[in-house]
Amino acid sequence: MATTEHEGLGLVQTKSVVLCEQGLTLDSGITFGPITVAYETYGTLTPDKDNAIMVCHALSGGANAAGWHEGSKHPGWWDDMIGPGKSFDTDKYFVICSNVLGSCYGTTGPSSLDPTTGKPYGPTFPVVTIADMVRLQALLLDYLSIEKLLCIAGGSMGGMQALQWAVSYPDRVRSAIVLASTHRHSPQQIAFNEVARQAIMADPAWNTGNYYDTEGPRMGLAVARMVGHITYLSDLGMERKFGRKLRNREKYGYDFSLDFEVASYLRYKGKSFVERFDANSLLFITKALDYFDLANGHPSLTEAFRNCQALFLLIAFSSDWLYPPHQMKDVAQAIRRSGGDATYCEMSSIYGHDSFLLEHEAQDPLVKSFLQRAYKIREV
Amino acid sequence: MATTEHEGLGLVQTKSVVLCEQGLTLDSGITFGPITVAYETYGTLTPDKDNAIMVCHALSGGANAAGWHEGSKHPGWWDDMIGPGKSFDTDKYFVICSNVLGSCYGTTGPSSLDPTTGKPYGPTFPVVTIADMVRLQALLLDYLSIEKLLCIAGGSMGGMQALQWAVSYPDRVRSAIVLASTHRHSPQQIAFNEVARQAIMADPAWNTGNYYDTEGPRMGLAVARMVGHITYLSDLGMERKFGRKLRNREKYGYDFSLDFEVASYLRYKGKSFVERFDANSLLFITKALDYFDLANGHPSLTEAFRNCQALFLLIAFSSDWLYPPHQMKDVAQAIRRSGGDATYCEMSSIYGHDSFLLEHEAQDPLVKSFLQRAYKIREV
Repeated sequence: MATTEHEGLGLVQTKSVVLCEQGLTLDSGITFGPITVAYETYGTLTPDKDNAIMVCHALSGGANAAGWHEGSKHPGWWDDMIGPGKSFDTDKYFVICSNVLGSCYGTTGPSSLDPTTGKPYGPTFPVVTIADMVRLQALLLDYLSIEKLLCIAGGSMGGMQALQWAVSYPDRVRSAIVLASTHRHSPQQIAFNEVARQAIMADPAWNTGNYYDTEGPRMGLAVARMVGHITYLSDLGMERKFGRKLRNREKYGYDFSLDFEVASYLRYKGKSFVERFDANSLLFITKALDYFDLANGHPSLTEAFRNCQALFLLIAFSSDWLYPPHQMKDVAQAIRRSGGDATYCEMSSIYGHDSFLLEHEAQDPLVKSFLQRAYKIREV
Repeated sequence: MATTEHEGLGLVQTKSVVLCEQGLTLDSGITFGPITVAYETYGTLTPDKDNAIMVCHALSGGANAAGWHEGSKHPGWWDDMIGPGKSFDTDKYFVICSNVLGSCYGTTGPSSLDPTTGKPYGPTFPVVTIADMVRLQALLLDYLSIEKLLCIAGGSMGGMQALQWAVSYPDRVRSAIVLASTHRHSPQQIAFNEVARQAIMADPAWNTGNYYDTEGPRMGLAVARMVGHITYLSDLGMERKFGRKLRNREKYGYDFSLDFEVASYLRYKGKSFVERFDANSLLFITKALDYFDLANGHPSLTEAFRNCQALFLLIAFSSDWLYPPHQMKDVAQAIRRSGGDATYCEMSSIYGHDSFLLEHEAQDPLVKSFLQRAYKIREV
């Protein structure tokens, strides 16, 4: 299923631009800037600038959506979907992906240096929202001199950004593809994020967010990722992959001599996440997820979609219990009630929430035909 | 729904007995003892000793299954089900409940003093299994001079003990009531327990289990409980109880100024758990849960039930995603295949895994008629 090395787009590089020198006014009311934005583009923009697609990453993703970075062992997070001949066909489309505000992969976040102090922002970083992330992406489009997107697309938190784009900038979005996402977090989704945050904040090394001169809250961040990782998988998927297999009969911990493969796998996932992600970014981004409510500022979810002109393709996955299909169905219903055009599809998959990253073969015909339809409407 | 103070059984007391002076041989091969067992009894044993019911508690429960302890704000964990005229009617039946081996409510566990050192066992406590817990309960029955149980009953981990009783001591069990439980942990169930353990062990105050001269891993234990608590509820139940209600707009943490009620509730649950439970007990008991596989030592689950003479009543709950109904259905199927008598019921409830503690009104007629049936068979 994985692309072999340097196939597809081959080597790619992240670009960077400093925006908002005068500051960006955030939902919190704070004016914040300058902001560095890390982004990548694949394919070629047409002279009419009518083939631009922006893809939005999830919680722990970055600007490297596709292609390979020099020396990296893995391609971009959606390399299965983006490239020559793939669902987001870079022979036809110009694909843009930027790292979100608050993250730690090149765009300004809590681990970035505050120019006024010369030290990392840490806990002084402002609270950001999904709408703030989208505001910054719109400024990136301005910088790239692109007025209108053929499509805005993303899964999970990326799907929330896509929905927010369609609502915040109805004139700039011809179509939106939203996978495994929601219009707002349910209390269970908030609860899992709260556990992740508390795990980080329980670690003395977190030091109220001021840890950049130390190793930081490695133990707490690993636990936070473990709980997140469980919610990305399904019970059946875990059963197929791990069952009750024991890893070894050597000693682990103190005298807990038997270690299940699933437990070992989770610990590995937790530890490796610590090497690549900033704990404060996880705190800020999970808060943005929890605060997200697309109906904010509108009388209802249906009214939020009232001015949207975009076509919507909404895909949910049968075993995704973190963002269960009924949430995506609610979005489709609200779009239709508002008079909009929404195609909803529930795919059968055992991969849980991760399905949107893994079920690219099943998604491919849906995405391709949807993009063709959006492209044709553009021509009218 | 809750019993008002000192209704039902009124004030009760926990009794205590020291067993296994010569040691109990555990599944690990270790011979361990002496073992103190904390237990309570309610009602009166008939001269024929044919009306004894043992109820088994879940992960964080204790011997106080019903009635009130002097000064306590809450009655026993199954007070809704046990008492005069209740499902386990103490006017008819003699009900016994003991704290499990490895716990921290009176029965010997890692926080108990090791007589050979005069210090708490801590990490030197032996690994215990559900079958070991049941072995100790059987010795308690011997001590009480009760040969045969009319019924063994429990939910969650208590249900595992009930199943293990029926398999380990087929001649001593006339009937078994198993609620919201399983014959073995799935990888997802193991995964959640692993996160809880890692949260405790990530806390420097855990100190590889040697913390009894300090406050111990309070932060880690609170996080462990939070993740557990999410799994005891259902998404719909949380939606009804909390929705996206905000608790206040005061500051919490650093600049995360908005706090969801569900997050606040979980933190409260985590913190209050720390006041009442031992972190090492949580480690040992969750390991016992994960290791539990009723088919261990048998060619199959069906064969495990082959010699059982007990009638079984198995109850699952529609919104219990921690111990989903399909697991209880598998148990019912295995019992029937083995030639046994199993009644399976899936109750509709929004309370998730906690349903077995809350849906006492729905359970009442089922449990009463089942116990009458078991009692009649006894007379034949």
